[in-house]
Amino acid sequence: MKLLKHTIGHIKEVVIDSHGDVGLKFKAFAIPGGSLGRLEELATIYASIKSDLNCKIKHKKIFTMAGDHGVVEEGVSAFPQQVTAQMVQNFIEGGAAINVLARYVGAKVIVVDCGVASHLEAKQCLKIKKIGLGTRNMTEGPAMSRGEAVRSIEAGIELIEEELAEGLDIIGTGDMGIGNTTPSSAILAVLGKMDVESATGRGTGLDGAALQKKIEAIKKAIAVNQPNPNDPIDVLSKVGGYEIGGIAGLCLGAARYRMPIMLDGFISTAGALIANAIEPKVNNYLIASHVSAEKGHRMMLNLLNKVPLLDLNMRLGEGTGAALGIGLMEAAVKLLNEMATFHEAGVSEPHNQ
Amino acid sequence: MKLLKHTIGHIKEVVIDSHGDVGLKFKAFAIPGGSLGRLEELATIYASIKSDLNCKIKHKKIFTMAGDHGVVEEGVSAFPQQVTAQMVQNFIEGGAAINVLARYVGAKVIVVDCGVASHLEAKQCLKIKKIGLGTRNMTEGPAMSRGEAVRSIEAGIELIEEELAEGLDIIGTGDMGIGNTTPSSAILAVLGKMDVESATGRGTGLDGAALQKKIEAIKKAIAVNQPNPNDPIDVLSKVGGYEIGGIAGLCLGAARYRMPIMLDGFISTAGALIANAIEPKVNNYLIASHVSAEKGHRMMLNLLNKVPLLDLNMRLGEGTGAALGIGLMEAAVKLLNEMATFHEAGVSEPHNQ
Repeated sequence: MKLLKHTIGHIKEVVIDSHGDVGLKFKAFAIPGGSLGRLEELATIYASIKSDLNCKIKHKKIFTMAGDHGVVEEGVSAFPQQVTAQMVQNFIEGGAAINVLARYVGAKVIVVDCGVASHLEAKQCLKIKKIGLGTRNMTEGPAMSRGEAVRSIEAGIELIEEELAEGLDIIGTGDMGIGNTTPSSAILAVLGKMDVESATGRGTGLDGAALQKKIEAIKKAIAVNQPNPNDPIDVLSKVGGYEIGGIAGLCLGAARYRMPIMLDGFISTAGALIANAIEPKVNNYLIASHVSAEKGHRMMLNLLNKVPLLDLNMRLGEGTGAALGIGLMEAAVKLLNEMATFHEAGVSEPHNQ
Repeated sequence: MKLLKHTIGHIKEVVIDSHGDVGLKFKAFAIPGGSLGRLEELATIYASIKSDLNCKIKHKKIFTMAGDHGVVEEGVSAFPQQVTAQMVQNFIEGGAAINVLARYVGAKVIVVDCGVASHLEAKQCLKIKKIGLGTRNMTEGPAMSRGEAVRSIEAGIELIEEELAEGLDIIGTGDMGIGNTTPSSAILAVLGKMDVESATGRGTGLDGAALQKKIEAIKKAIAVNQPNPNDPIDVLSKVGGYEIGGIAGLCLGAARYRMPIMLDGFISTAGALIANAIEPKVNNYLIASHVSAEKGHRMMLNLLNKVPLLDLNMRLGEGTGAALGIGLMEAAVKLLNEMATFHEAGVSEPHNQ
């Protein structure tokens, strides 16, 4: 709890001011005012967080947080639980979508075992931050203890601190965990105070009957545990997951060390909702890379007051949307650094109308 | 006319079949079916055009087509005409937004003088395909002769053929031309059979009174010239522009040599509308990189039956949206080439529900 408290206490409010210095710099560039749209917004966010008009992006890391979920016993996923560990192995071997997209944007993938239901060995690109061998079945009681919830968040903070020495300018979040749209929907329903049906989608591809089972499981978990919507750690412990806590910790840690956080999809945003409820100052460090095809994601983004950069009908997780978002962010920052002004380029300015 | 006829005659219909071989390859990858969304669609388009499941993207080139417009006499632009030539110089020096974004995605920028209103010298990255020193004022008669319209299209085809030897896998379109949203809106109004008000936006930033002048100029040009909506070359010659004809030629040439065409914004899509009206088989080679903030662009995309990849409130032109779209396309093609299958990765497949 000490690390969490310390981290929260050191998060500084960041003001994203499009009328400030970055806006003035864009106004001087030889383009019609505002014509680079959201790329200007992204550059403004980055430079505001770094407090530096000449900031560059060097070190990009995507954390793919893995964990298992006891609630899969209720038949809430189209895939068997062992796929979580199998996919972790796929990430290590570099054959997954996140590996391909991260290579493309020049980001390093750090895979983290937050609570996979089997024993995994640490490797160069696999970190072990195991809180437990999967959460417990949340329809029968809390998914984890309050202490475990805090430890899962602190694991995310530790990851940021461990990478600082090597260099870290921007992070992307990602997830892997069979069944993890179920706790994410539960978090949305509780923190967003909305009905479970609206918060629950098909995940990796449930049919109608299985979707109904998933909705029932979430309703039961909320009824059994009575998570307190005003206590995000209570919500995480009762209906969350280890990797979701880890993602919340990444958000808090990155904000504390003044780094933008490129959120992936539904599960990552559930983690961000927890972090944002713990400390609202984290909000201005968050960027929504995309809106997932998973039902409920847009509602999560609304709760965070974020407009997604991309809408490509993706719903894979792993950090794939975050990788594409980091690419857009880097493009935006390069514009800020490399464009010529009207004056430098000898280009005439607009008529006074 | 010979090159244009020959090119049209050699464009082959391409079938984009998401249920074909590319779809099967994605189904075998260790991801939930369809979860990569529009990235799967992009890979399908690319592999279908190349007729090759193992296709790669090596040579990416963005053609930034420049031209001037006699109609600027009517006060339709916020910028003076000399900015076209000044920006061409900025492109050559590498300080414009398109240079920055093209470098970021590894694409070469080829700047083309299709009809700038001053004499420019060819340079390594500036090609001269000058049809005239700017078009004539279309409110007083045709912007160009029919012969000039054909030559402007053929110039675009020539550009493709000149780059073939060095290698060309995908092209992006781009434009520079003070006043060129005016002919583009006129083309939309005529080919889309819609009212001029709905087709006309603020361009680089007109205020209300100037926008009204622009609308009046377009109405007058259409009334004076009576362009025939069933004859796209007639439309181009009467209310078009040299660089817009050049972009139409790029589309036809790229389709003839089986290359995907990543369209930029409003002006590029006006060129694509001309190409698509000349030979509808070009349509499946076209990809809409983004929807511009310019009013009317979404209507153009609807006419082409295209859903844009990005919606980032951009309205700069130059090829900036196309550069970002090429990045997404390359990411998609890399997924197709580099991902592991369920079998290769030893990942269990979904339950039969």
